[in-house]
Amino acid sequence: MKQLFITLLCLLAGILPAFTQENPEYKVRLSHITVDPVQLKEYNAFLKEEIEASMQLEPDVLILYAVSEKEHPHKITILEIYANEAAYQNHIQTPHFLKYKQGTLHMVQELELIDTYPLIPELKIKEAAKHEYPYK
Amino acid sequence: MKQLFITLLCLLAGILPAFTQENPEYKVRLSHITVDPVQLKEYNAFLKEEIEASMQLEPDVLILYAVSEKEHPHKITILEIYANEAAYQNHIQTPHFLKYKQGTLHMVQELELIDTYPLIPELKIKEAAKHEYPYK
Repeated sequence: MKQLFITLLCLLAGILPAFTQENPEYKVRLSHITVDPVQLKEYNAFLKEEIEASMQLEPDVLILYAVSEKEHPHKITILEIYANEAAYQNHIQTPHFLKYKQGTLHMVQELELIDTYPLIPELKIKEAAKHEYPYK
Repeated sequence: MKQLFITLLCLLAGILPAFTQENPEYKVRLSHITVDPVQLKEYNAFLKEEIEASMQLEPDVLILYAVSEKEHPHKITILEIYANEAAYQNHIQTPHFLKYKQGTLHMVQELELIDTYPLIPELKIKEAAKHEYPYK
């Protein structure tokens, strides 16, 4: 009830347009995955193969950027950006996604999927510059 | 104590190399920020200005990708990728970062900074393809 109130408050405060105006079609999600620590090496191999296949074979899977917490390496977060809902629906029917999903079901202890709005949807990851520090 | 045990278990299981071998220099972090809902619009404006300045002016701030949870818009997560630790240390001394930090201190209710290892550090966000769906 408190969460509903806060959500409504945010909507009334008019903050959502700042997060949606640039490209309302993008589907952007955070996946929080807790993996069985003793199966983490195998899980990571599955995930890496799945991400590499998705990035190579699916033009509208814009990124699946997975990170592992340094202090809790079995806690994984994936920033997922799809061009639109159709891209996501297509993604979850691909052979590489199904292989990952079925292959890791018994390794995943918790899965939380959080739908989000991006603040600046068109932002891209840059190449690292080659100069020396400090450059101020 | 349990967390320490799990971390050690993961280290022993040899999973960390999968998350570090490609580019050990990258500094990759998740920032979880809970904003005072009534000040969220103003907070978002500060954050957007800060990110745009960082992306334009700092070659080795590779991305600051901010998302807002649809169900709790005042909960923000930022995936932060810096080319290395020096890039981050430089970033937090820039005028645009200090303006954001000082301007939003009273708006932030919670701040959690989580250091991470990226699974595939060199991954980039693609442009959305222009074709029609379904493309299977």
